[in-house]
Amino acid sequence: MAKTQLSAEEYVQGILAGNRVVLGQAITLVESARPEHQTLAQAVIQKLLDQRQAAQRSPDNDAGDSLRVAVTGAPGVGKSSFIEALGMYLVEQGQKVAVLAIDPSSAVSKGSILGDKTRMERLSASENAFIRPSAAGTSLGGVARKTRESILLVEAAGYGTVLIETVGVGQSETAVHRMTDIFLLLLLPGAGDELQGIKRGIVEMADILAVNKADGDRIKLANQARAHYLNATHLLPPKAGGWAPRVLTCSAQEGAGIAEVWEAVSACRDLMLENNFFIKNRRQQAKYWLEEAIEAGIKAAFYGNPAVQAKLAALEPQVLAGRVSPFAGAEALLHAFFKENPSYGSKP
Amino acid sequence: MAKTQLSAEEYVQGILAGNRVVLGQAITLVESARPEHQTLAQAVIQKLLDQRQAAQRSPDNDAGDSLRVAVTGAPGVGKSSFIEALGMYLVEQGQKVAVLAIDPSSAVSKGSILGDKTRMERLSASENAFIRPSAAGTSLGGVARKTRESILLVEAAGYGTVLIETVGVGQSETAVHRMTDIFLLLLLPGAGDELQGIKRGIVEMADILAVNKADGDRIKLANQARAHYLNATHLLPPKAGGWAPRVLTCSAQEGAGIAEVWEAVSACRDLMLENNFFIKNRRQQAKYWLEEAIEAGIKAAFYGNPAVQAKLAALEPQVLAGRVSPFAGAEALLHAFFKENPSYGSKP
Repeated sequence: MAKTQLSAEEYVQGILAGNRVVLGQAITLVESARPEHQTLAQAVIQKLLDQRQAAQRSPDNDAGDSLRVAVTGAPGVGKSSFIEALGMYLVEQGQKVAVLAIDPSSAVSKGSILGDKTRMERLSASENAFIRPSAAGTSLGGVARKTRESILLVEAAGYGTVLIETVGVGQSETAVHRMTDIFLLLLLPGAGDELQGIKRGIVEMADILAVNKADGDRIKLANQARAHYLNATHLLPPKAGGWAPRVLTCSAQEGAGIAEVWEAVSACRDLMLENNFFIKNRRQQAKYWLEEAIEAGIKAAFYGNPAVQAKLAALEPQVLAGRVSPFAGAEALLHAFFKENPSYGSKP
Repeated sequence: MAKTQLSAEEYVQGILAGNRVVLGQAITLVESARPEHQTLAQAVIQKLLDQRQAAQRSPDNDAGDSLRVAVTGAPGVGKSSFIEALGMYLVEQGQKVAVLAIDPSSAVSKGSILGDKTRMERLSASENAFIRPSAAGTSLGGVARKTRESILLVEAAGYGTVLIETVGVGQSETAVHRMTDIFLLLLLPGAGDELQGIKRGIVEMADILAVNKADGDRIKLANQARAHYLNATHLLPPKAGGWAPRVLTCSAQEGAGIAEVWEAVSACRDLMLENNFFIKNRRQQAKYWLEEAIEAGIKAAFYGNPAVQAKLAALEPQVLAGRVSPFAGAEALLHAFFKENPSYGSKP
């Protein structure tokens, strides 16, 4: 944390003025588990959202001024180099780029493998780029929430393009997919998705598939992989936004194909803005996170309730052994939770 | 419902005596939405579970005396004929067989397409078979709960083999997978899973894959499909229970291959009983349904609360438009729910 705590208004003014130190401190605030930090963080976010609304053309959506792009792929695919190359390309075009990361495994592995500034040397030196290593956290839900709130902060600070990196294995893709506009999947030359360690379902989420490391001896293999995935995307059901996924090759190391990848991203964005799916999707995402946060809150209250805890300790072994029906067990636990609270108005 | 309402004890005695009329009435009770029926149904189930425990060898599980088998496949694959053929085979072996069905679409399509007695003429005439068409319901959760409680009733009535039929498209397979010991997927001769309308993930759940309609001109195509799925199962990650899925062909119409399908089911059960996965899986399933029922109950209380409803109506449009963060919105709603209830002990 900052040594001297800023007020909400000071955070807001600093962020709006493009002060990257203040922006970084605000993200640290969002990531903090301390209640007073959370209260302050929420105040900062709300003030920024109010500012943003006042400045926006369209009053019924927040889609006018930013683009959120997921960048994923299995370990070893070259995500950091790709993001460095893409980020530099965008900065050279005059854009401001923020890089965030989701890596729920970082809490276990003691240290983020993503968004590592030392692996993005040129980009992290750029005045128009902001790179933030992944938030620590013990649960994907917690990490996802912190990342989503960080998106709001970097957007308020004027970073119109937000790249959100994730590790390419497990559940974090689904979370990232639910907070981004466009999903970019990096692939390796050669090898099917089984061998690339890509889970089923991730290819289905992708809007753009880019076979990285298409350089030197690997160009032929890269083209084979491109053909394989082109075929795979043709077998998938059409996407809700009407976009037909594109499969490209690139070399982050040589800088080849990066402009083409961004052209595909832009075409995808333009189509979805035109047919209104972009805004519809952002609204659906906001609804999803609202419901997720409610569910997390009521579950925390329920399972943290002493009466529930005592009853659960006695009942769960009975239910697991098949001596009490799960539904009867649930009724008994719900009764323990709700009986003290006649003001509820509605019983389950 | 029965014209004269039985007492819980009368239901229990009727079910334990193998009275199929009483068993049918008890399932109707389980399916009823009326609170007094639900109270009575829960009392019947608890008495039966108590009886069962008293009669069981092993006190810490309910796995000793029944086998629950999911039977699924796309429409047209011949599920009813297959279940008739398999059910008759089992009855002729001296087993008692119950057939239940999950079809959450039945509420919409006005009438179950599954578990249809008229399509299982021989089996429904058998004294040792009990066939119940799918429960009606507006939500998968509700239908799943009714089916899971019906399983307990038919098992208590002595039906040691329970076949649970589902329609092979959508989410109902996951629910059925979570209430059965063995998952049997029926397939058609020829055609890959894309063309068979099988969702990704369903093949992964299957313990036994059976290509039905392997008769006449279709034998060659059936063998091709068998080879295709044999290959597909080899690419899948190994199953938690240590079972390697088997792929077979059969013809429900000609009765060919039915004994072999059952032999595979028995081998799968024996392996899982031996390595204890069978019991572990039942315990995990009970835990899952307990948590599901709790979640459904607390969500119903939350979203049914008048203060929450008023606040949500005002807040949701703000969240969807990006003017309020979903997490701040959730906090405000949780506050509206919990503020009247100081006795909670734990706040989210």
